[in-house]
Amino acid sequence: MTARTHDERLHDREFVRTFFTTPTAVEGEEDSAKMLRSASGLQGMEAPDVWVPDNEDATAPSMRDEGAQNIVEVVAANGEEFPSEIHPRIVWHRDSPETRYQGFQHILDIADPEKGAIEHLDGFVIPEVGGIDDWKKADEFFTIVENEHGLDEGSLAMSVIIESGAAELAMGDLREEMGKPTNNLERLFMLVDGEVDYTKDMRAITPTGDLPAWPELRHNTSRGASAAGLIAVDGPYDDIRDVEGYRERMTDNQAKGMLGIWSLTPGQVVEANQAPLPPESGRWLLDDGTQQVDLDDQGDEQVYGGDRVSLEETGDGYVLSVGGDEQELDEDELREELLDMTAYVPSMDDIVDSMEEFEAARDAGTGAIAMERAATIVIDDVAIDIATDRMWDEATYQAAMTPVSLFQDVYENRPDQHDDLADRYGESVVERATDVGN
Amino acid sequence: MTARTHDERLHDREFVRTFFTTPTAVEGEEDSAKMLRSASGLQGMEAPDVWVPDNEDATAPSMRDEGAQNIVEVVAANGEEFPSEIHPRIVWHRDSPETRYQGFQHILDIADPEKGAIEHLDGFVIPEVGGIDDWKKADEFFTIVENEHGLDEGSLAMSVIIESGAAELAMGDLREEMGKPTNNLERLFMLVDGEVDYTKDMRAITPTGDLPAWPELRHNTSRGASAAGLIAVDGPYDDIRDVEGYRERMTDNQAKGMLGIWSLTPGQVVEANQAPLPPESGRWLLDDGTQQVDLDDQGDEQVYGGDRVSLEETGDGYVLSVGGDEQELDEDELREELLDMTAYVPSMDDIVDSMEEFEAARDAGTGAIAMERAATIVIDDVAIDIATDRMWDEATYQAAMTPVSLFQDVYENRPDQHDDLADRYGESVVERATDVGN
Amino acid sequence: MTARTHDERLHDREFVRTFFTTPTAVEGEEDSAKMLRSASGLQGMEAPDVWVPDNEDATAPSMRDEGAQNIVEVVAANGEEFPSEIHPRIVWHRDSPETRYQGFQHILDIADPEKGAIEHLDGFVIPEVGGIDDWKKADEFFTIVENEHGLDEGSLAMSVIIESGAAELAMGDLREEMGKPTNNLERLFMLVDGEVDYTKDMRAITPTGDLPAWPELRHNTSRGASAAGLIAVDGPYDDIRDVEGYRERMTDNQAKGMLGIWSLTPGQVVEANQAPLPPESGRWLLDDGTQQVDLDDQGDEQVYGGDRVSLEETGDGYVLSVGGDEQELDEDELREELLDMTAYVPSMDDIVDSMEEFEAARDAGTGAIAMERAATIVIDDVAIDIATDRMWDEATYQAAMTPVSLFQDVYENRPDQHDDLADRYGESVVERATDVGN
Repeated sequence: MTARTHDERLHDREFVRTFFTTPTAVEGEEDSAKMLRSASGLQGMEAPDVWVPDNEDATAPSMRDEGAQNIVEVVAANGEEFPSEIHPRIVWHRDSPETRYQGFQHILDIADPEKGAIEHLDGFVIPEVGGIDDWKKADEFFTIVENEHGLDEGSLAMSVIIESGAAELAMGDLREEMGKPTNNLERLFMLVDGEVDYTKDMRAITPTGDLPAWPELRHNTSRGASAAGLIAVDGPYDDIRDVEGYRERMTDNQAKGMLGIWSLTPGQVVEANQAPLPPESGRWLLDDGTQQVDLDDQGDEQVYGGDRVSLEETGDGYVLSVGGDEQELDEDELREELLDMTAYVPSMDDIVDSMEEFEAARDAGTGAIAMERAATIVIDDVAIDIATDRMWDEATYQAAMTPVSLFQDVYENRPDQHDDLADRYGESVVERATDVGN
Repeated sequence: MTARTHDERLHDREFVRTFFTTPTAVEGEEDSAKMLRSASGLQGMEAPDVWVPDNEDATAPSMRDEGAQNIVEVVAANGEEFPSEIHPRIVWHRDSPETRYQGFQHILDIADPEKGAIEHLDGFVIPEVGGIDDWKKADEFFTIVENEHGLDEGSLAMSVIIESGAAELAMGDLREEMGKPTNNLERLFMLVDGEVDYTKDMRAITPTGDLPAWPELRHNTSRGASAAGLIAVDGPYDDIRDVEGYRERMTDNQAKGMLGIWSLTPGQVVEANQAPLPPESGRWLLDDGTQQVDLDDQGDEQVYGGDRVSLEETGDGYVLSVGGDEQELDEDELREELLDMTAYVPSMDDIVDSMEEFEAARDAGTGAIAMERAATIVIDDVAIDIATDRMWDEATYQAAMTPVSLFQDVYENRPDQHDDLADRYGESVVERATDVGN
Repeated sequence: MTARTHDERLHDREFVRTFFTTPTAVEGEEDSAKMLRSASGLQGMEAPDVWVPDNEDATAPSMRDEGAQNIVEVVAANGEEFPSEIHPRIVWHRDSPETRYQGFQHILDIADPEKGAIEHLDGFVIPEVGGIDDWKKADEFFTIVENEHGLDEGSLAMSVIIESGAAELAMGDLREEMGKPTNNLERLFMLVDGEVDYTKDMRAITPTGDLPAWPELRHNTSRGASAAGLIAVDGPYDDIRDVEGYRERMTDNQAKGMLGIWSLTPGQVVEANQAPLPPESGRWLLDDGTQQVDLDDQGDEQVYGGDRVSLEETGDGYVLSVGGDEQELDEDELREELLDMTAYVPSMDDIVDSMEEFEAARDAGTGAIAMERAATIVIDDVAIDIATDRMWDEATYQAAMTPVSLFQDVYENRPDQHDDLADRYGESVVERATDVGN
């Protein structure tokens, strides 16, 4: 027997990039399931890793019984063809037994094998959970539904929306609680932040009414996921027009270990499916004192095009000016200074190269090697060669593995995205990236 | 029977804006209770939501027995007229049984009904608590005092100062512990950060000796309050001259859900009583790349007066320059760019308008509506009309309710501030704001 | 009997500035213990507060049995002369019983009194711990080793590397768990962050592959140390060339109460031994709107040398310009403005002065006094006298004590650094700093 450790992920997917919600029933349409039907046809980069027919906030309260029927109908008809996981969100509230019972009835109904949807469903999403005892009430309903319908105990995944201080605290107890014989909390799959309701629950106020960034919540969600073998997903980004802002939020999330995010539109799905994957080509950055700007890759040279940084050759050295602060430097000092100011964003190809190189060295008995990266930096027509050395040891290698593991998880579970990945990286890089580390 | 949920606030006040401390006995004065007597006469915006006769740090150790007597005397005499709650702070320390016993004796003494103060007192503040077992020791003394003096068990509110890592951790246990039959921790009311002693307990050092900002502590206090139905209050802001800094701290706190703050002077009380209330008039902000600056409201136009952003009309479009970075844009692109750069701070009137509009739509069966806000932005004499659409659904409505709920709580509990509120907002807005959402 | 409180530190050292690791066995060298032997000879500012012969990540897996022997040999030979504590790191992993058993065998072996090393060893460092039950497994092995070798139960200190979300959460349980009769967790000494493996465990990604800053982890480690009477130490700073970056990280850590840091080279040890000690001379800072810059101390005057801030005398007042924003001010307004813009970094001498002054006032019965600090600020040849008043009370005094307590801990435990401290501060300041507060 191999004991499961909580640090292993418990479900098919080890990574979820995208959590896409769709209203289950829209009033006033001839076909109230129209949006659901449309979303069920998504494929490729427009299809999320997890599709969430949303029978809670996205659907009017009066339409939710009809919404439950729509889920059954559309998933039974189109679920077979859908390329990834389906986890409907049902109603729940830590403070309302009426709402909890309604949620239970919807799960019981949707999961009825006679209706033909359950074989295409992977689990359900429970919003508005409170403390850990509230999570256990939901888990118990899953167990009853499984027993009632002859499904394996624990086979339905349960994901929760973290949208209260109580739920944030509960994430600290999961690791302890998940092993107990009186529950089946091993069914837990995703921890999803819900910042709108969280803001209400925390009674936060901002002058413009914008949501606070809640960095501590996102850290704690990522940590809870790490400690209990779950997957952390950030909440919705409301300003759909603002693609740049959505990307910045994802970069910030990724540095916290939160690699998934809610998507409200297929356009956001495409962005969020791509964001945690390494870029197709590498690029150099220069810190101009206020921000990191991309250098223009002109073949052999990386050219700075801004005007905050300037560089001049004098008879016996250089004058480097950053935002008005001048420094007189000799060539070595200038090189040192530029090393501090520059950084390289590696491509998938670069990452796989480095990993292969480390693996070869390790196989030959070397525990740490220096990875060199060289470039010619050009500022105001003055060209300087720089080269960085970074030591790679086993820990560096393991940490660099995260985006590659994510890629491999996508590749294994999303054949509908193989063409897109080949277009992005080229067949040869895709092949090497699927092999490395195994 | 309606079960209480922890998410409901347990006391009369659901919000506390201001926590104002006064020394209880000052040596060398003819009347050692002079400051206490003076503070007991505060009314209106100068009177705090919670007044704290401070028999701990603000009062010399040798004067604390006299301070306890002064509290009794002044509160018995003037408590009836005092417009809000009174919670004296007594001595306590997690590491000193002597101090804890002294604190118990002071509560027992001050709460004696024969002395006439207790009917005007709402509870006591316990500083320097440690882990949850230490909180229980204080709670037990409250219970004994209540029993000894024939008061209802749990009727005295207990608030604590969070000024140790142990107390910060204890806030994660409150929700679990508050329901137990062996304590009366439901008496808990405010969680108040005490950053000076917390800094000492954490052994933090800053070069200038200034206090660290402790964002994680404030988050955890707000979360602890949210999870246990309590009220979060920030610690003292020492630099009394620095009104701007005090306001910035409050804005930062509000975004964390910490709506109350310590006040050291009646001037700070006025600032802190106003800060979480929506402004009397709205205003537009423009992000100039380094900060958000107020636009000058000239009736129909919102005029930018700075020099970091400039705008020029060319024959076939516009040139927008932000801190030296120029962009050539057509009219639609310019409008899009300005939408990203601007934000609107709604007034109380605006907020009530939006809420009423959403309520009307909801009553008519619509779950989400677009709220439009239009303006003419003027930069370098070039005027551009912009209009934002923001979707409001039930969750947006609920989150927007927080400042209005705070206003309603103030209005209900602080009749002495009715005139100030009418002066600020006008009678009609006050009336609508007290009605909305009910 | 005096009960121990968890807020007291449990071991000889109350502060650890430096945690210096050395590989225990290097392949391909004639003497595989060469680095260990060399490090064992460090003295003075190059010698760390805690030396960690590293039989885990710094040493190749195949060399670790030999590494354990090298530790025994080198420590038996040179441990007597080593000026501070020695805590070897052995192997451990929450997910591998094989690794845990190997770690146990290494401790059992190294601690054998017949081999002569244990009398110079203070404890062991356990990496890769998980939840609290995993910590207890390690503690149990320490107890068995102590019993087996006739050492006092609990006499070997245990320190852990926090490099998983599970371990981060476990720090919240320490205070509760440390008192239990079934463990000897009071042996815990240091909580050391390990950001490389933590980043892997959290599955975080950054574009350049740099480590995230993990502010919440560092806060939680410092808090865990505070609540359980332990010492918080930050992880390695990989970019050894970047002295400025290392210093900035330490300043950031110190504001969190994390006063120790990993050092990878003797050069980093020197930096990190000095960083938390107050400077030898004070200096004035001016906030130029983007950052705080040092003023040039020219005897009686503090001169600003930058060009973002300018000051001009007009007939009837002054024009102060900060980054292009001009203000017309009279003399009082200018003084007020400069007070807001300036700050003073006190020297050790200044701190001791202030503490002595407060102690004298307190002995004379005064609870709070104003500390004045005056300077003449010169901008563009215009000189203005300013004076700040800061109120000191008992809490201010206690918080100011932290760097002095650290100094006293160093002075008591590191006689090998007495000369360096005297060179830095002068004998008289050293003497007063060792006396103050006692």
